Formats: sequence, structure tokens, C-alpha cells
Amino acid sequence: MTLTRSRPYKEKIVGYLGPHGTYSEEVAFCLYQDTRVDFKTYSSIDMAIKAVESKEVAECIVPVENSLEGSVNVTLDILAHETTLYIIKEVIWPVRHNLLVKEKTDSIKVIVSHPQALAQCRRNLRKLYPEAELRTMNSTADAATLVASGLENYAAVGSLGAAGIYDLQVMSRDIQDSSTNCTRFIVLGNHPANPSSQGKYKTSLVCQIDGTRPGSLCEILQEFAKRDVNLTRIESRPARTGLGSYIFFFDLDGSMEESNVRSAVEAVKTKSLWFKSFGSYPLCTLQDNTL
Amino acid sequence: MTLTRSRPYKEKIVGYLGPHGTYSEEVAFCLYQDTRVDFKTYSSIDMAIKAVESKEVAECIVPVENSLEGSVNVTLDILAHETTLYIIKEVIWPVRHNLLVKEKTDSIKVIVSHPQALAQCRRNLRKLYPEAELRTMNSTADAATLVASGLENYAAVGSLGAAGIYDLQVMSRDIQDSSTNCTRFIVLGNHPANPSSQGKYKTSLVCQIDGTRPGSLCEILQEFAKRDVNLTRIESRPARTGLGSYIFFFDLDGSMEESNVRSAVEAVKTKSLWFKSFGSYPLCTLQDNTL
Repeated sequence: MTLTRSRPYKEKIVGYLGPHGTYSEEVAFCLYQDTRVDFKTYSSIDMAIKAVESKEVAECIVPVENSLEGSVNVTLDILAHETTLYIIKEVIWPVRHNLLVKEKTDSIKVIVSHPQALAQCRRNLRKLYPEAELRTMNSTADAATLVASGLENYAAVGSLGAAGIYDLQVMSRDIQDSSTNCTRFIVLGNHPANPSSQGKYKTSLVCQIDGTRPGSLCEILQEFAKRDVNLTRIESRPARTGLGSYIFFFDLDGSMEESNVRSAVEAVKTKSLWFKSFGSYPLCTLQDNTL
Repeated sequence: MTLTRSRPYKEKIVGYLGPHGTYSEEVAFCLYQDTRVDFKTYSSIDMAIKAVESKEVAECIVPVENSLEGSVNVTLDILAHETTLYIIKEVIWPVRHNLLVKEKTDSIKVIVSHPQALAQCRRNLRKLYPEAELRTMNSTADAATLVASGLENYAAVGSLGAAGIYDLQVMSRDIQDSSTNCTRFIVLGNHPANPSSQGKYKTSLVCQIDGTRPGSLCEILQEFAKRDVNLTRIESRPARTGLGSYIFFFDLDGSMEESNVRSAVEAVKTKSLWFKSFGSYPLCTLQDNTL
């Protein structure tokens, strides 16, 4: 579905995980509020990313990491194995989950939501509703739609925005397991971000190293450490060639315009069996999500 | 539900993710085929693990890592944050997925399964059924039950065992994205495995290191490398205190009975802000899953 916002002409189309009422939509609307864009929703994260690769949309916004639940694997795997896209922006978004119902009730038997949202509230939900079955859906908004259809004793975990869109009532607010629950979203495009010396930048890359040799990961980390390049994240994912072989994602403080970052990245590239850079990109600060 | 197998007396109860027809069940039946045990199924991995902690069951079998889809986060997070259990055995299980239907049809519109199973077949499913919606369920067996209920144009990703149990037909065999698709299962208990000098052992631990200092992870890795201890896996998970703080899981070749392993683990413990060992445990070899 293409949403046209009431502006005279559109510069580009931006894709995200729909339907209406997802957290991705909140971020998209906030990030592009001053820009002339059309939006297009996709029913899965991989379809949103592939739409950039095929140039159906110019950019997409996808979640990549949550402070409680960790990596969004599908995003990392497609970036590593199936596209040649760049990260052009990063956004940290505070995620506040709520328990949404059609009509308030003491008897909640099934709680539906996206697996990440259920995981981010798992401990609280077990405490509040120890007997309830947790059932996974494709998105928080899909879960809200299902509950809105009137199934008895069902509740959804989702945003206040979804409650408004699907005419649901809020049984409990802020049910995430930590008050600092945040999700890191990235904007992907076919070209690297414009380099700039202003503001804070990060650089991301993925590589495969010779895992059969003890100490090989250690050698890679030393390339960053000896140049004083701060590693903000290291994440291993399967190389998809069998158990025990991995690829490693690294996020670094700084941009490739800085000589120590560039030199560390080049050294890592030389030492890797396989290497891919997602470029350097600015960190974007948004207002709190009070949508 | 407690399943009593036809044996004279039972030594213990073993828990796993049900209902009948899950891959966990295949592994459980195979692993304990010569032992006097009762089985109990749980509707989620966290409930199966908690049942060991509360001593409702003596042991449980849970998946911890897949060769295509990576870590099973819920298993790692509960082990790190919510229990004091030990790993007492490891089993590598070849996982072969199949597309199961009530009646054979050319029109498949919705494909249901556990998120891990869908992820392990994502590329093949997109190729075979580009228009189909992929919908997540709590287990592969739950997906098979749903398809068996007779919903039109639905298919499930699951085992041949599930096809037999739920009277489904096999539309396509071996639809996993890699022929080497394996899942690593672990058996958890309240006491460490009996140390033995026979057979291959592994040792697992989790720790939090000072991530604010560049090079701190590198120093930890050096403790293993300089003692020639082979690291078979490193996995980061959120420390659950906010974006950017992580805990690290390490799997090592060898047992704490070996002096170089013991000395490396003790050095890592000293350098960690927080540390927990899951003990040393034998690797178990099973026959191919021809159930």
C-alpha cells in the first residue's frame, strides 16, 4: 500500500514493515516528517530490504537491534548475504509496549504479538498472566488487528498508536521488561551516506575470519585496539556453511574519513577470508516517541 | 502432558518443547531411548527450562543454536539471567524441513511454522512460493496442528514425524536453505555433568566485561589464545541494561579437568565484571534422525 502524505510533490518512496501501527511506522513518520516522501509498507523485513535492492523504493527503515532482545537476525543476514546496500542513517528509538484488548477483562488467555515484542515483555507477562499462552505474529500491528477482530480473551502487545488505529483499549501500559527498552533502526539505501565532518558517525562491516586457528578473532580485535578505534558492537552470525563457522559484524565509532578508522578497516579486510563494508553513517537523534 | 513409555519403572522426568511432533521431541526420544524416563512437554522453551529449576522435571532438552539461523535467544537469556542450571550434555541434530499440507494443492497462500523453521527455509520458500505469506507459530507442531484442522491454502513447515502424527501430506521434502542444516541441543540439569577423561568435552561460560575500555574483549580472548584453548563459539547478547552493553557467551574445547582450560577460565573470571560457568559436558553423538 502506498501512503501519500499531503505535500505538493514527492522526492522518493520509503519502505518499512507494516501494516499501520508498527513501531517501524512510528520511526518512519518521525524521521521523514520534514521531507517530501511517499511511504510503502511491506509484510516482512526481508521484503522491505529487497525493495531497496530492486529500486522499488529509494530507502527502507528496518530494526537491527533491541536493547533487551538483541539482534534482528533477518536484517543482519540479508545485509551480509543477499544485498549490496549501505547503511545511511541510524536511529535509536525508545520502545514502550502496552497490553491492548478489545474490551477490558480479567481473563486473558492468549497474548499475541511479534516475537521480538513478546520477548521484550516476557518476564512481565509471565508475572501478570502466568497461565496465558504467548502466540507469535508477523508484526505488532497484525496482532492488534487480530485482537480488534473480536476474539474473546485475546490481548496484543503493541504501541499506543496501534491502540488508536485499531480502536483497542489499553489494559496495561509500559509492560516492557526494562524502562530503557530501545530499538536501533537503520535506514538502508543503494549509495553510501554523504561523508561529513559534522556530528557523530559510525562505520559498520562484516567479515569472515579463519576460525580454525586459535587467536584469529583476537588478531582482528587488535587491529582496532592498537589504533584506539572503539568497537561499539561485535555480533557473530552463522556463515551458513555448517555449525561452527561464523561471520562477525563490527560497529565502530567514527567514519572512514578518519585515518585511524580507515587504516584499521583496511587491515581487517586484508586479514579476512571474506569482507563487506556497509559504509559510514550519521547517528540521528529524534524526539521521544510521543505519537 | 506426561508421556509414560512402556518400561517397568522410571528414573526421572525429562521436559522439552511440545506438542508432539516437534524436533525437540525427536531428539528427546532418540537421546533417552535406552533409559527409563517419563517425558513432559511444555508450550515454550522458557517453561521447559524453568521446570528444571523448580525440580518439576530432572532435566530438559532445549535448542541453543542452529547452523543457519544462529542462537536461540530465549535459551541463552534464561541461562544467563534467570537460572543456576548446568549444561550436562550437547547433541547435534540434523534438521530436515518439509512442506506439509492437508491435501496437495498448487495454491498455497499462507505458510505457518516456528520462526526459526521459517527462517531456515526463507530463501527456498521465497523461490517456491513468492506470493505466500509466512506466518509464525509457537512450534512446528503447532503449525502442523493448524494445517491439519483444514484451513484452505495453508501449509506448515515441519518434520516427517509431524506429518505422520497429524496425518498431513508432504508437498516438498528437504526445503531447508542448506543441506548441512543442524541444530545444537543441550540437556540442562541442576548439577554439573560427571567429569570423565573419556570422549570429547566442551566448557561453556558467560561473562560481562568492561565495554567502555577499547581492547577489553581482546584481552579476554588473549587469555584463551595464549593457553592454546580453542574457542568454538563467541556470542554476544544484550546485558539488558541498555543499548551498547553486552554479555558474552564462550564455548571452549576441553573440560575444566584440563589445566590449561581451568587456568584460562579462572583468568577470564578475574577480568570480568560478572561471570557464570555452565560447567563442562560431553558431546553426544546420535544416529541420523530417521524417525
